[in-house]
This record gives sequence, structure tokens and C-alpha cells, in this order.
Amino acid sequence: MSGEKKKLGELAAMVGGELAGDPELVISGVADLADAGPGDISFVADARRAAALGNCRASALIVPLALAEAPLPSIRVRNPYLAVAQIHGFFLTEPFVATGIDARAVVGRDCEISAEVAIGPLVAIGNRVRIGRRVTIHPGVVLYDDVILGDDVVLHANVTICQGCHLGSRVIIHSGAVIGSDGFGYATDSQGRHLKRPQVGIVRIEDDVEIGANTAIDRATFGTTLVRRGTKIDNLVQIGHNVEIGEDSFLVAQVGIAGSTTTGRGVIIGGQTGVSGHIHLGDRVMVAAKSGVHNDLPPGAVIAGIPGITHKTWLRASAAYARLPELVKEIRELKKKVAALSSAGGEPGAGDAGDD
Amino acid sequence: MSGEKKKLGELAAMVGGELAGDPELVISGVADLADAGPGDISFVADARRAAALGNCRASALIVPLALAEAPLPSIRVRNPYLAVAQIHGFFLTEPFVATGIDARAVVGRDCEISAEVAIGPLVAIGNRVRIGRRVTIHPGVVLYDDVILGDDVVLHANVTICQGCHLGSRVIIHSGAVIGSDGFGYATDSQGRHLKRPQVGIVRIEDDVEIGANTAIDRATFGTTLVRRGTKIDNLVQIGHNVEIGEDSFLVAQVGIAGSTTTGRGVIIGGQTGVSGHIHLGDRVMVAAKSGVHNDLPPGAVIAGIPGITHKTWLRASAAYARLPELVKEIRELKKKVAALSSAGGEPGAGDAGDD
Amino acid sequence: MSGEKKKLGELAAMVGGELAGDPELVISGVADLADAGPGDISFVADARRAAALGNCRASALIVPLALAEAPLPSIRVRNPYLAVAQIHGFFLTEPFVATGIDARAVVGRDCEISAEVAIGPLVAIGNRVRIGRRVTIHPGVVLYDDVILGDDVVLHANVTICQGCHLGSRVIIHSGAVIGSDGFGYATDSQGRHLKRPQVGIVRIEDDVEIGANTAIDRATFGTTLVRRGTKIDNLVQIGHNVEIGEDSFLVAQVGIAGSTTTGRGVIIGGQTGVSGHIHLGDRVMVAAKSGVHNDLPPGAVIAGIPGITHKTWLRASAAYARLPELVKEIRELKKKVAALSSAGGEPGAGDAGDD
Repeated sequence: MSGEKKKLGELAAMVGGELAGDPELVISGVADLADAGPGDISFVADARRAAALGNCRASALIVPLALAEAPLPSIRVRNPYLAVAQIHGFFLTEPFVATGIDARAVVGRDCEISAEVAIGPLVAIGNRVRIGRRVTIHPGVVLYDDVILGDDVVLHANVTICQGCHLGSRVIIHSGAVIGSDGFGYATDSQGRHLKRPQVGIVRIEDDVEIGANTAIDRATFGTTLVRRGTKIDNLVQIGHNVEIGEDSFLVAQVGIAGSTTTGRGVIIGGQTGVSGHIHLGDRVMVAAKSGVHNDLPPGAVIAGIPGITHKTWLRASAAYARLPELVKEIRELKKKVAALSSAGGEPGAGDAGDD
Repeated sequence: MSGEKKKLGELAAMVGGELAGDPELVISGVADLADAGPGDISFVADARRAAALGNCRASALIVPLALAEAPLPSIRVRNPYLAVAQIHGFFLTEPFVATGIDARAVVGRDCEISAEVAIGPLVAIGNRVRIGRRVTIHPGVVLYDDVILGDDVVLHANVTICQGCHLGSRVIIHSGAVIGSDGFGYATDSQGRHLKRPQVGIVRIEDDVEIGANTAIDRATFGTTLVRRGTKIDNLVQIGHNVEIGEDSFLVAQVGIAGSTTTGRGVIIGGQTGVSGHIHLGDRVMVAAKSGVHNDLPPGAVIAGIPGITHKTWLRASAAYARLPELVKEIRELKKKVAALSSAGGEPGAGDAGDD
Repeated sequence: MSGEKKKLGELAAMVGGELAGDPELVISGVADLADAGPGDISFVADARRAAALGNCRASALIVPLALAEAPLPSIRVRNPYLAVAQIHGFFLTEPFVATGIDARAVVGRDCEISAEVAIGPLVAIGNRVRIGRRVTIHPGVVLYDDVILGDDVVLHANVTICQGCHLGSRVIIHSGAVIGSDGFGYATDSQGRHLKRPQVGIVRIEDDVEIGANTAIDRATFGTTLVRRGTKIDNLVQIGHNVEIGEDSFLVAQVGIAGSTTTGRGVIIGGQTGVSGHIHLGDRVMVAAKSGVHNDLPPGAVIAGIPGITHKTWLRASAAYARLPELVKEIRELKKKVAALSSAGGEPGAGDAGDD
């Protein structure tokens, strides 16, 4: 909490919202409906949840345009979550405190590290590492040789960045994530033994990417595994060698993307979905959770199932699936009836021998 | 191994079992059938596996009630696994050795740490952390500021507990697990860029919970992500922000639970299953491995498939699925036959034009 | 890069390939088509991609036998990936530099550690640990008591090897992997509470195994969880207690193998597939990505789907699945037609009342 205060009218201007109430009202923080108290601004994202506002003790509210009347001074906006994120981010932002490099961190040779960093104890930094301004590195992080970090990067505890990988600015990596492990590449000899193919590429993470806890992103065999600007990756995601993920995309938890696949911009991949290697997903593709994508997808495709089919078809197919035992029975009965009709109809004129 | 010994009669009393054999027989440990030797008590959990007892070199056995005769002195119980766990736990329990805080650990300001702990080297503990009695912390563990640990907690190597998270007593967390990473929450602006929603809640883990290796549990956006007493979570599980898992439940490996979902008591979720966000699973719900649950489930529901349907229906539907190619063929043949019948029957009187 | 150089004729002999071009041509490295320059040997694995050779600036190529003519001096081989791996491995191999044990590593009592190691800072090694020759241990690795490592092992940053686990020679473990976490074993009492079953076995990893980032392999309840020689395991894989994985197998990312399952030699399990506990997969079994295997499989079985069926049937069944809504409609129409035929045919003679 920054201790900063702001007037309601200023907050409305910050998010481009419509003010209903006293513009001079002083706001000092953001809280959800359950916990908000005097001085807080709270929010409701969906007009249908307006009933929940009854007991709210906040001083003001962020509400959707669809909510005609609010019981408290309010800022009305098209996208309440976006306005809350902007305002909450404002209140939480504190000036960066450059504590420097803790004496119990280990730093290799020939590094270029900004003076304006907060590098904790028990961090291991290899040789020739370059670290930008206002970077925070928590304990247990390991940076191999030749790693490059941009400005305003946050690496949470026990993150590993392997040799030569590059992170842009404002990248956030959560605990336990591994960037730059070797790709899963082998050549199999005539005896069925697997010989490791050297993995000599890197991983590059562009600006404004966030990567979840215990996610693994493999380095390229040759060249670069790439996560483009603004993409958000959840926990326990697997990204294979030479994959390229487009800008402003979401990969939800436990997704796996196999080697050399590329994706366009604004793609959304639901949790636990798998995407095969060497394919391309166009811009704005959406894949439902737990799906399996085996083929190229055109821009805007909306897919579900294993293998993936259009979401619309999947909804109907999966409903029919639950009725399969019934359908089997119906087919069996139809066969009996048709056989009976055939033999009944066959008495007078026969002649249907050829239709089987 | 505690070096403790116990008489067979005492062990029978400990587990409430029926003794068959000398109550004075001295037992000093537990081993499985393959490795047991003199002094050991071994076990067979299923009466149908009694043949395996032939070569057993143990001094005594724990056997199910259904096993009428055992070739060795025996304790007969309803639940052999439970009796083995109780007796084995007894033999393995050693007095806690409070080695204190290793000089190569790092401890922040204003912490309250019991004198009776075993905190290894290369552990990093933030500010204002509170740690109970008989807590064991292995190397590489990182506790952020304001973490609270109860009594008898064990944190294995390279575990991360993020800011402000609370663990109850007798919690065990296996290596690489991350408790309190940020939830996956963003608000998307009109250009399709994702703005991070601050994640200011915590994770609370109640007493007697065990959490597997490399599992990730996200902090709440606001409020608390909660795992209730006695629940056991396997490796590589993902639990999203604001989830609440009920008491005495099992989440098997690689399960994913999306944000804000709540579950009742005694729930069992099979491996690799995904559960959507914002739903509720009632008490004692069981979900088969690799399923996808999209809707609320009533207490006691037994579910399988993607999307989840009742397990009973799923068994029949999935069997029918394998026969789908056949069914397609049968339908094609039926259509041909019916068409032939229609045209044959149509010759004399027509009149069936309306039935299509 | 070793700085080593080699003549093209020598490289051809190394991989048993057919030389087309000057055997005296000096080669100093390997690169892909996009990045190769003078002195490099590059490669094309598939003759159909020969068009890509047009702009290649490499000095020589490794090409498949099917490629009759190459625009550069070439080595023609049956398996280009294998030849590239061999030649690239040769160029990358450098003499091991035994930097010893960093002063900021922590080593317990009674260890036997070869003088010829490279153990980095912030490594924690327990008591009675044995470490072979030419072993590399990156920062943040934790070895519990009684761990044994063979020769030429590489442990990447933040790996955890729990108590008593054994690794053979030439084992590579990527960052964040956990070897020897407790198996997920509990006995449930009459109140529905779960009592931990002690997990007192170990994990043994044989020679030439490679294990991916953030993978977890649980120790046996009793005895040994075993990964046999030459097997390659990708990132984020879960292997339960008492599992045995055969030689020269592939487990692709995010696979889960439940407890006590055993597999033969040369098995390939696709990404995100789950295998139930207590079953056996025969030699050379192949399971497609995202499948669920519930039953024993004979040698050579090729399986897909949940539950797994033969891949051939699955291809046809999954195609039919997408047509299910259509099939439902067809059945409905057939029922109507048959009903109409029955009632039309029933006018003259009735008598078909019993076929329903």
C-alpha cells in the first residue's frame, strides 16, 4: 500500500468513467465488497450482482454502465475489472527501493548490473549477466551465464533462467518457473537408443509477459523459443523448443505446447489443453480447456475436444455422447424392426436382396 | 527408525485387531513381504494375495479379517493399510531433534521462531515470519514476509511460501511446491492488452494437509485461497485463486482447479482432471481421472468424462464410442434398407411423402 | 564450442555416411540452415525440404539418402538427425573442468565426493552422499542424506534429490525436478480421515536417463521406483511410487504414471497422457498424446483416447464423434420412417406388435 490518497473525481478521470457523487470524496484504497471499509472504493463487475451491494461499507463503488443506480457514490465504467485494476494498481504502486545486491548473493564475473536493483540473499548469478534498472530478484533464483534481464523485471523465489536467455522489461516470473531448460530432442539409432540432440538455442521473453509458478519453457534446438509482448502464461505450463507464442495471449494452467508450433496474436488456450508440434494457430484462436489441437487453425477459430473440432459442434457432439448408450439401443431396435418389415414385405414380392 | 520395540499383543491393541499367536513376540519394524526379515511385521491387504505369504520371512503379519488362516503369528484387522500405517508410523517416529537455525540460513527482521526447530542451511526467511514448534525446513526453502507456520510443519527442499500465507500444524509440503503465487487475473483493455489485476489475498492451509512436489496454489485476488484440514494434494496440482478445498479430500497428481471453485468434504478428484472456475462440488463427490467438470455437482456424485457425466453413463458411453465407426455403418445400411422398403411399399399406395 | 575442427571426410566416416564433395574440407561447427555460415555443416532432415537449401551459406550439408543432389558438399545418411546429433555432440564436447566444490556450497558429514567435480555455490549436500567423477551440480540443488550419484551426472539449478535416491552415470536432470518426494499413499479411517502411509523406499535412476524441468518422481512406499537405462523424460511429468519405466523409453511432457505401474522397453507415451496404477505396458507400446490408459497393454500396442483404444479405431471413432449430432438426427428420421412403414404395412396384416 502506497499510503497515497486520491479524490473520487480524480479516479473517475483516471479510468474515463462517469462520476455519480461527490468528486471531492477522498479514497485511500481498493477492497472487495466483503472487506471494504470507510475510505475504500469497492466494485461490482456484473449489474445482476447489485443485490450484494446492500451491506457494503465502502465509501464508493466502481460499477458497470448497466447498473443504473448505486447506493453509494460511484464511478460507472464499461469494464469494471479494467477500472479496478487501474485504480488498484495506482494505490499499490510504491517507489522502487533499490536495496542493491545482498551480500549473501553470489555474482559471477563480467556482469553488468544496474545500481538500482533489489537482489536478495541466496541468489546465484553467473558470468556476463546483464540486469536492467528496478529489477527485483527473490532468494533462490539462479541466473546462468549470459542471461539478460530488462528493466522492472520481477523474478520470484527459486526461479531458474538458463544460459543465454533474454527477458524484456516488466516481465514477472513466478516461483519455480524454469526458462531455458533443454528441449526434448533426440535421434534414435538402429538399436533403439536415443542420442541427445544438442539444444543450443535460447528463450526470449518479450516485454510485459507474466509467467506462472513451476512453468517450464524449453530453449530452442537452434535459434529461439519466443514469447511475445504482453502474453500471460499461467502455472505449470509446458512450452516446447522453438515454439513462438504471439502477443497478448493467454495460456491457462497446465497447457502444453509441443515443439516448433507458432501462434498468432490474442490467442486464448484453456487449461490442460495440449497443442501438437509444428502447427500454427492464427490470431485470436480460442481453444477450450482440456482440448487437443492437432492441426493448423485459421484466425478466430473457436475449438474444443480431442481432437479439436469447432466449439459449436463439440457442444452438440458431447451432449450426444452422453446419449450414446441410448442411441446404440435405438439402432438395435431399428434393425429388428427393419428386418421384420423386410421379411414381412418380402413375402409378396421379395426382390430386396440387393439392398444389403 | 526409532529403535523402539513392541510386543505383538501391544501392536494388536494399538490397532484394535484380533491377535492370533504369541502376544509376547517382539517386533522391531515394518517391511513389505519381499524384504521383511526376523523381527519385522509385514502385511497383506487383500485375502486373495495370501499365496504370496508362502516365502515371507517376517516374524508376524497384519492380515485382513477375510483371511481365515495365516502361516505366521498375525493381527487380523478390517483395514490392513490403516493398521500398517499406524504401526509403521509408530516405529518410524523419533523424538524431534531441535538443531535450531543453521548459520547459513538467512532470517529477516522481527521474526518469531520457536527455539525448537530444525532449519537447514540456505533457507531464506523474510521479515515478521512466525514459526511454531518442531518445524523442519530443508535447504532452499524461501519464506516471504509475514508467513505463519504452525507446529510440526515439514517443508521440503526448494519450497516457496509467498507473502503472508498461513500454514496450520502438521502440514507437510514437498519439494518445489509454491504456495501463494499470484492468481491468473487480468483485465483486458479495448486494444486487447491485458492489465494485471493485483492479487492481494493469501493462501491458508489448515492442519494436517499434505501437498505434493511442484504443486502450485495461487493466492486469492482478495481474501483467501483455502485448503481445509486433512486434505491431501498430490504432485503437480494447480489450484487457482480463491478456490476453497474442503476437509479430508484427495486431489490426485496433475489435477487443476480453476479460480473461485469450492468443494465439500471428502471429495476425491482423479489425476489430470480439470475443474472449471466458479462452481461447487458437494461433499464426497468423486471424479474419475482425466475428466473435465464444468458444472456444480451434488453431494455424492460420481463423475467421469469431458464434460463430466455420471460415471455409470460414461462407462457405457465410452464403450459405445469405440463402436462408433460400426454404428455409422449400421445407420448407413439401415437408411438404404428403409429407402428400399419405402420405395417398395410406395409403389402400391404412395402416401408416405409426409414422413420425412 | 570446443574450438575443435574436423575434415568433412572424417565426419562422414564418424557417422558412416556417403561423402559427396571434398574430403579435405575443414568444418568447425554445426548450425541450422538459417544461421549457418562458412565453416559450418548444416542439414536437412527431409528430402522434400530441399528447396530450403537454396540460400544456405553453410560449407557443407548432412542430407538424407533420398536427396539425390545437394547444392553443397554433403554427407548422405539414412538418419540425418542422428548424424547431426553425433557430429554436433563432437563439436560441443569440451574437456571437463573440475572446479571442485564452491566455498559457498554446504556439504554434510561423511560424504565421498570425487575430486573431479564442478559443484557450484548455494548447493546443499547432506550426510553420507557419494558423488562420482566429472559431476556438475548447478546452484540451488539440494541432495538429501545418502544420495548416490554416478559419473558424468549433470544436475541443473534448483533440482532436489531426496533421501537415499540413486542416480547412475550420465544422468541429466533439468531445473526444478524433484526425485524422491513421498508417494501419495494414505489409509482412510472410519471417520474418513486420511493417515499417511510411511514412504520408506527410494528412487533409482539408471544410466543415460534424462529428466525434464519440474518433473516429479516419487519414492516407493517400500522398495524402489525405477527408471531404467536410456529413458528420456520430458518436463512436468509425474511418476508415482513403485512405478518401473523400462529402458530407452520416451515420456513426453505432462504425462502422469500412477503408482506401481510397470512398462517395457522402448515405450513412447505422448504428452499429457495418463496411465492408471498397477498395470503393465509391454515393450514398444505407443500411446498418443492426451490418452488415458486403464488396462494392461501387449507389446507393440498403439493406443489413443480416453479410455485408450487402438489408435486405428480411435481415428475413425473420433471422426465419427464430430458427426454425432448428425447421426442423432439420422436415427430420429429413421425411427419416423420405420414407424410410418410399420403402420402402413400394419394396415393389411398387422402382426408386428411383438417386435418392439
